[in-house]
Amino acid sequence: MSSESDPRFRRSREAIVNAARELLLLHGPAAVTHNQIAEHAGIGRATVYRHWPRTDQLLAEAMATVPLPFFENAASPYREWLTRELTTIAGQLDQDDVRAVTSTLVNTALWDAAMDTRREGFASVLSERLTAALGEAARHGELSLRGDATAAAAMTIGPIYYRATIERKPADATLIERCVDAAGEWRTL
Amino acid sequence: MSSESDPRFRRSREAIVNAARELLLLHGPAAVTHNQIAEHAGIGRATVYRHWPRTDQLLAEAMATVPLPFFENAASPYREWLTRELTTIAGQLDQDDVRAVTSTLVNTALWDAAMDTRREGFASVLSERLTAALGEAARHGELSLRGDATAAAAMTIGPIYYRATIERKPADATLIERCVDAAGEWRTL
Repeated sequence: MSSESDPRFRRSREAIVNAARELLLLHGPAAVTHNQIAEHAGIGRATVYRHWPRTDQLLAEAMATVPLPFFENAASPYREWLTRELTTIAGQLDQDDVRAVTSTLVNTALWDAAMDTRREGFASVLSERLTAALGEAARHGELSLRGDATAAAAMTIGPIYYRATIERKPADATLIERCVDAAGEWRTL
Repeated sequence: MSSESDPRFRRSREAIVNAARELLLLHGPAAVTHNQIAEHAGIGRATVYRHWPRTDQLLAEAMATVPLPFFENAASPYREWLTRELTTIAGQLDQDDVRAVTSTLVNTALWDAAMDTRREGFASVLSERLTAALGEAARHGELSLRGDATAAAAMTIGPIYYRATIERKPADATLIERCVDAAGEWRTL
């Protein structure tokens, strides 16, 4: 009986996901193999294969345990809301696990269709939520949008993502304020 | 005689680097192994090991064959120069090989010290050249710098890099113009 209701099945599944996540964070995506997971989790290799026949599924599973940042609960005053959200994103991208998952997603998506679908979903949610929030801000008279609103994600998250992954430094309050300003022309209410 | 002057040595070295580059672009960094390179290049595995004992060196070698974008030859009018440079960077990041090398560099640098040194060098050159060019533009009265000039790389390349790697879409002229505007307050001469 190796079904989802079997507590031993659930326990080995958890041990595998934990080992996959730890290997990803310690050594990078290339370390997430059936062999290394079996060894790291102290579980037979056949068990690892039974749960996840393919390495890319294991990596996806390991990545899913790290929450990625999203724009949520937009509210007036929108300038303050955007500053808070970008500060949160900057703080998350300053953490090793989030940086590891984000850059592994971007890299593996170039060769793996399932990862690319995940990347696309992540990019779409960020862009749609931000575009909607900035549209609300414009209707409230708090913001004059500059050009195309769908470019807002690239303009506001892009510099923070570059700072965190290419420059490997934390985004300070000054950089975050410039990202907020890059969203459009803000008006004091 | 297996020295650098031996033409056979040079030929096998070239074949190995080409195979490593092709495997990276076709299947990603995890495919750059001694086994797969030997098979792909039709060369003995021992020869591959003799040239590059470690996989990470092979990957670095494969990556070095793809030129990464740099800010060069800054000249007045600086706004036009920056637009041209960012358009070039956007065009390069829209190519599969440059996107592959950039995101592999960012990802592997998290776990490999040599790659991290390479990432740091790349980030520093971009930032130093851009900061110097924008400083010249400010002295020529073409630009009022907004805040810290060292944030210019993140503000201007960040959105293009986000668009190319997270959103996987080309950066259009409108996005590039917004990046140019994010560098500071430009003045028409």
